[in-house]
Amino acid sequence: MKQVAYIEDYSTWKEAFEFYTPIKVRFSETDMFGHMNNTAPFIYFEEARIEFMKQVGMFDNVHHKPESVPVVADLQCDFHQQVYFDDQLKMHVKVEYCGRTSYDLHYLAVNQSEEVCLTGRGRIVQINPQTGKPVEIPREIKKRFHVAE
Amino acid sequence: MKQVAYIEDYSTWKEAFEFYTPIKVRFSETDMFGHMNNTAPFIYFEEARIEFMKQVGMFDNVHHKPESVPVVADLQCDFHQQVYFDDQLKMHVKVEYCGRTSYDLHYLAVNQSEEVCLTGRGRIVQINPQTGKPVEIPREIKKRFHVAE
Amino acid sequence: MKQVAYIEDYSTWKEAFEFYTPIKVRFSETDMFGHMNNTAPFIYFEEARIEFMKQVGMFDNVHHKPESVPVVADLQCDFHQQVYFDDQLKMHVKVEYCGRTSYDLHYLAVNQSEEVCLTGRGRIVQINPQTGKPVEIPREIKKRFHVAE
Amino acid sequence: MKQVAYIEDYSTWKEAFEFYTPIKVRFSETDMFGHMNNTAPFIYFEEARIEFMKQVGMFDNVHHKPESVPVVADLQCDFHQQVYFDDQLKMHVKVEYCGRTSYDLHYLAVNQSEEVCLTGRGRIVQINPQTGKPVEIPREIKKRFHVAE
Repeated sequence: MKQVAYIEDYSTWKEAFEFYTPIKVRFSETDMFGHMNNTAPFIYFEEARIEFMKQVGMFDNVHHKPESVPVVADLQCDFHQQVYFDDQLKMHVKVEYCGRTSYDLHYLAVNQSEEVCLTGRGRIVQINPQTGKPVEIPREIKKRFHVAE
Repeated sequence: MKQVAYIEDYSTWKEAFEFYTPIKVRFSETDMFGHMNNTAPFIYFEEARIEFMKQVGMFDNVHHKPESVPVVADLQCDFHQQVYFDDQLKMHVKVEYCGRTSYDLHYLAVNQSEEVCLTGRGRIVQINPQTGKPVEIPREIKKRFHVAE
Repeated sequence: MKQVAYIEDYSTWKEAFEFYTPIKVRFSETDMFGHMNNTAPFIYFEEARIEFMKQVGMFDNVHHKPESVPVVADLQCDFHQQVYFDDQLKMHVKVEYCGRTSYDLHYLAVNQSEEVCLTGRGRIVQINPQTGKPVEIPREIKKRFHVAE
Repeated sequence: MKQVAYIEDYSTWKEAFEFYTPIKVRFSETDMFGHMNNTAPFIYFEEARIEFMKQVGMFDNVHHKPESVPVVADLQCDFHQQVYFDDQLKMHVKVEYCGRTSYDLHYLAVNQSEEVCLTGRGRIVQINPQTGKPVEIPREIKKRFHVAE
């Protein structure tokens, strides 16, 4: 696997993932080069991220005036293996770091042959949708993030 | 061109279009069969529809509590010619019929060789976003729709 | 439920569906009006259609020079109920009619409350990807289509 | 503007852009939080990248057995300002670095008020589509990349 700046030691990094969402690569997500288009991983990241956040209680009440909403500050993705139509991915998510109002999520997608296809990361800031200001992350939630110390 | 139920006489139908938006087929809108994916025309229909509605004054204030918003009741598309990456389409829109709270839009896309690629239609209902109820279309707007009587 | 031209009697029509795919409405498929964007059903139709076609053996070898590929001739969708982020849809597919080289698929999506959200239909033509010509649908496949006579 | 690792000095970095593509944020690219969904910038990056590559002669013959095709090795995006429906972006692209078989593209999107909305970067590798092996970038093309030395 090629080196990426946000992964110090791959096997340690990989072991810390506890959560994943299954993703099936859709036909409409391929392009004329015959594989998954490069815009698709960010759709998968969002899907896995939201499933993760629902599990830890960060995405409740999203339909009804939530106190805070997650806003993406940055995103990055490394493509390690070609991904094809109908590939069955396990899209893993974990919190790598958690600050006062923002946190870093890391992503790992392996395919049905357990090959590493995609890795990534991105910072999320919790924002009050009325004021546009950052909001503190509740201690309860932080605990459920299981950030390695 | 194959027959479609919503076009009685093609040349009469075509002549009534006054408005179009240029559309360039994106690479990410192709699929592994090498052409535009079948989900893309509905993106183009929406883009052309909104440009048209902005022109007639139906899509103002959409950011700030509009009195009514357009809700799609149905949509259909006929594929007449293959569409490829980088094709330059003229996506035409017209109002074919206008009722009290809803109207029928028709669509025609021709490519850079003036070939008919896509035709379509769909009903839009103007809905009050607070109550969810249909809202009457102002007489002013109806005039700008230029529906052939 | 509003009347649609391709459904004669709703309960008879509904009973003939034997196949469905579960679909979860993604956050990225919503729009600023707060619900599923109108372009999303066609993504779901394609996903369900391909799952169905894999089951009947019409979508094998799609990666390696298939004898024929499915090409969409037309598509339509009726929106019966608002669809929201995180809705769990059952997207049903059936063959309503099968000719020599083409067939009509019908679609029905119900949500987690068993409400009808989307209905639709569309013609598919099997095309030889080298010649661009229509290809006969094998008798074997036709049997598995279970078209009501 | 927040600090990002791939930009040493913002004004020097910005001045080196010579090329841009206009992008209009589509309604279908918004989400229920009322702004552009975070997956959309990567669509815009691809659109701008391909327009740039066409201009320097790297994306010719893409329909007919090209000698090499661009494959994305990694992508990243920083979100500096909220982006909304109908925003008119200028999406700039430049080659920041060019190696033997790969190159780094940098991206900058400013809105109609000349505010920096998005910055990004990503490595592209030119791959022979038959062999899957990297291909040298022709000297002719390198010259047109205008990489600052």
